Amino acid sequence: MKKVAVILSGCGVFDGAEIHETVLALLAIRQHGAEYQCFAPDKAQLHVINHLSGAEESGQSRNVLVESARIARGEIKPVTELNVDEFDALIVPGGFGAAKNLCTFATDGADSQLDSDVAAACKAFAKCGKPAGYACIAPALAASVYGNNVKMTIGTDESTAQGINALGAQHVSCPVEEIIIDSEAKLVTTPAYMLAQDILEAHAGINKMVQTVIGMA
Amino acid sequence: MKKVAVILSGCGVFDGAEIHETVLALLAIRQHGAEYQCFAPDKAQLHVINHLSGAEESGQSRNVLVESARIARGEIKPVTELNVDEFDALIVPGGFGAAKNLCTFATDGADSQLDSDVAAACKAFAKCGKPAGYACIAPALAASVYGNNVKMTIGTDESTAQGINALGAQHVSCPVEEIIIDSEAKLVTTPAYMLAQDILEAHAGINKMVQTVIGMA
Repeated sequence: MKKVAVILSGCGVFDGAEIHETVLALLAIRQHGAEYQCFAPDKAQLHVINHLSGAEESGQSRNVLVESARIARGEIKPVTELNVDEFDALIVPGGFGAAKNLCTFATDGADSQLDSDVAAACKAFAKCGKPAGYACIAPALAASVYGNNVKMTIGTDESTAQGINALGAQHVSCPVEEIIIDSEAKLVTTPAYMLAQDILEAHAGINKMVQTVIGMA
Repeated sequence: MKKVAVILSGCGVFDGAEIHETVLALLAIRQHGAEYQCFAPDKAQLHVINHLSGAEESGQSRNVLVESARIARGEIKPVTELNVDEFDALIVPGGFGAAKNLCTFATDGADSQLDSDVAAACKAFAKCGKPAGYACIAPALAASVYGNNVKMTIGTDESTAQGINALGAQHVSCPVEEIIIDSEAKLVTTPAYMLAQDILEAHAGINKMVQTVIGMA
């Protein structure tokens, strides 16, 4: 059975991994006959957002790995333990955590820096030619990982697309239920909740992304 | 389009709503042609559990409505605003939050008490003869809502089943991918992660539960 590593960035769309996208990705991995192991960086989140009010909870601190464990039901490891040799493919769901905790795209845009442990893991898949799928805003992370004019999408948002291009990738507009494939890099991306108005729309794109990634593995 | 109210109990299997069960229920509601609105009680959680270590985080406090908002992407209302006249059916996912924050079954067993706002909402669906689906451990809540020898399942765990029976319900053993229907009460239950070894197993039972509840509405 093919094995897929999944890198999470917390638990909640505004400061962590987007929960629907993550669960839909895990479901799709199993439905397409593969198994998964979740990982996350063991460090403090950039910040904590109250998901009811949208305001930052000043003075609160939460750990990315500990909060990601909520989605993974405790079955999760530090991203430093991700050994590319043990996996056939990588999936990175979106949520602002991907641009806040896995890299600094949310605050630094074209000057985005990768978390060093996340960078080591993601670049290992790229270097080995193992396929990867990045959803929603996570392609901003992939832009720093792959660079080299790699084709990808975050949907249709122009300012985000410009940031992606400034990082050395090549943004391609894409509707919510579709995916963009860079065959040479074996990179698959989908807009998910960058565009989705509904869980059905997010499901369509993520399912297609996961199926394609597993098919390439 | 039929409208389904969904009552959440936090965000995470050990102290809140089970995340996979909730997302799978939301997906199923939309896939079966209905729409949903999430609700949760606006009060402190019983406690906060570190989902990596399994230990209680002493001194931490989180609000059930605010944490539930993470799964609902901010689109959630206090359960006091749930007006049964506006909905065709009710779904309550599991996770220990259902037995810790919506009632006290986790700590009090056969002496379980209902949260008064949750009780008002859930009993309104029972009284109006509108169908409801409770997954995983949430049937322990339904036992206090319906009583009256209503048929339900939490899977096969004997001690939990005895607690359910002591609350006046009639527990029926059930495999993970199946549901138990009490046609008179219009109550549908499924074991989900009380038995599921895998997201595919949870998905099968929850999808069947949601489809059946919507079909009854």
